[in-house]
Amino acid sequence: MSEESSGNTRKVEVVPSPALFPVYFENTDCTVVVIDVFRATSAICAAFESGVDNLIPVATLEEAIEYKQKGFLVGAERNAEVVEGFDFGNSPLAFKDGQFKGKSLVLSTTNGTRAIEMAKTAQKVVIGAFTNLTAVCDYIEKEDRDVLLLCAGWKDRFNLEDTLFAGAVAQKISQNLRFQDLSDSSIAAINMYNSAKEDMYEFLGESSHRKRLSRLNMEEDIIYCLTLDQSNIVPILEGDVIVNSDK
Amino acid sequence: MSEESSGNTRKVEVVPSPALFPVYFENTDCTVVVIDVFRATSAICAAFESGVDNLIPVATLEEAIEYKQKGFLVGAERNAEVVEGFDFGNSPLAFKDGQFKGKSLVLSTTNGTRAIEMAKTAQKVVIGAFTNLTAVCDYIEKEDRDVLLLCAGWKDRFNLEDTLFAGAVAQKISQNLRFQDLSDSSIAAINMYNSAKEDMYEFLGESSHRKRLSRLNMEEDIIYCLTLDQSNIVPILEGDVIVNSDK
Repeated sequence: MSEESSGNTRKVEVVPSPALFPVYFENTDCTVVVIDVFRATSAICAAFESGVDNLIPVATLEEAIEYKQKGFLVGAERNAEVVEGFDFGNSPLAFKDGQFKGKSLVLSTTNGTRAIEMAKTAQKVVIGAFTNLTAVCDYIEKEDRDVLLLCAGWKDRFNLEDTLFAGAVAQKISQNLRFQDLSDSSIAAINMYNSAKEDMYEFLGESSHRKRLSRLNMEEDIIYCLTLDQSNIVPILEGDVIVNSDK
Repeated sequence: MSEESSGNTRKVEVVPSPALFPVYFENTDCTVVVIDVFRATSAICAAFESGVDNLIPVATLEEAIEYKQKGFLVGAERNAEVVEGFDFGNSPLAFKDGQFKGKSLVLSTTNGTRAIEMAKTAQKVVIGAFTNLTAVCDYIEKEDRDVLLLCAGWKDRFNLEDTLFAGAVAQKISQNLRFQDLSDSSIAAINMYNSAKEDMYEFLGESSHRKRLSRLNMEEDIIYCLTLDQSNIVPILEGDVIVNSDK
């Protein structure tokens, strides 16, 4: 048990960048929440809400192409845009018509799927987004393990929106007496969430990725990704595949 | 020039952990501010304020021992305590009597001196602490380069006090029109500083390192390290040696 651990409560640690995951990942018996608000994890949650059966995250485009050649429906995004030749990117709005209901999908994105790959050896890996915030927090509390909130960031840099969501989770679960052992990164993320929560859209106005998406006319995606609790589904990783934890 | 860069203004980026330094260090023509508020950089500033002539930072205890054997005055700290057999640790209060005036010192600490070592290839490397905040900001503005605010953290983890100081610098220099290109990490650090600045001692009450120091009865050090502008000296790195930038 680390120096900071206090008694019987669970640790809640925000990992500000995937490059820091090895530093924080001391105990595989934990719940890792993978966070890529703009937009991979928001898209994955939207996919399950629309009835997708399962989703295989792949880190590289090479793997994505292999699945495509085998006949899978494959999404791929790089630098916020759909990669040419693929069926969709990481816009959550791609799922709103339910055209992938019951299907098995494959997805590769700039930051999100790499973070999922890193987290694989943890006991539980959960896909989190503002759109399923409450469901994720309920799931974490039921699991009752130490928690790592893994921000996918942008090419290993810290980003605001993922840390904001990590702060939302940390704040919510730390109201439960079992989840009181907060790291410095969790304290900072909670502080930021509390100062931003009244108007996250406004707060993120100067953030690098909101500007990037705005330039690409993705305002509708941004608003969707910042709208809380649109889904009660918690996608989790089973082996190499993301599934609905309720099924 | 990166996607985020906007025209003629300088970038201001907070590096939340030394492990992320390679991610942010894209351009050697920059000013790196090394930050280890509790307590290496506060101690280095106190040393120069007390009249120390120069200070050689060394990353490992092996190097520290070698200098000791050569007859140098050597400080060494690990896990917040003075290492046995050395002349001082990283308490800034060790310098208050001026007993090291005019001397050349060597120092090795858990996090701070390692961060200095990493930053060495940057054009300018500056030692920053709350105790010389205004002087550091003036120096950065005069240098007129991109800025990396490198938080030494705690064993590669994010920590509150270093990020708080980074936020104080980012906020102060971004009032100058030349320093408007803020990274997400800078926006977050400024936000945190603004919410904490009225009572930083209170804000840090739950932080891991303040608790660690409190257990070791270092409250007096904490208060010293959080007191702004006790020195006008900006220690900078020249080659392998830290010197007073005014001399």
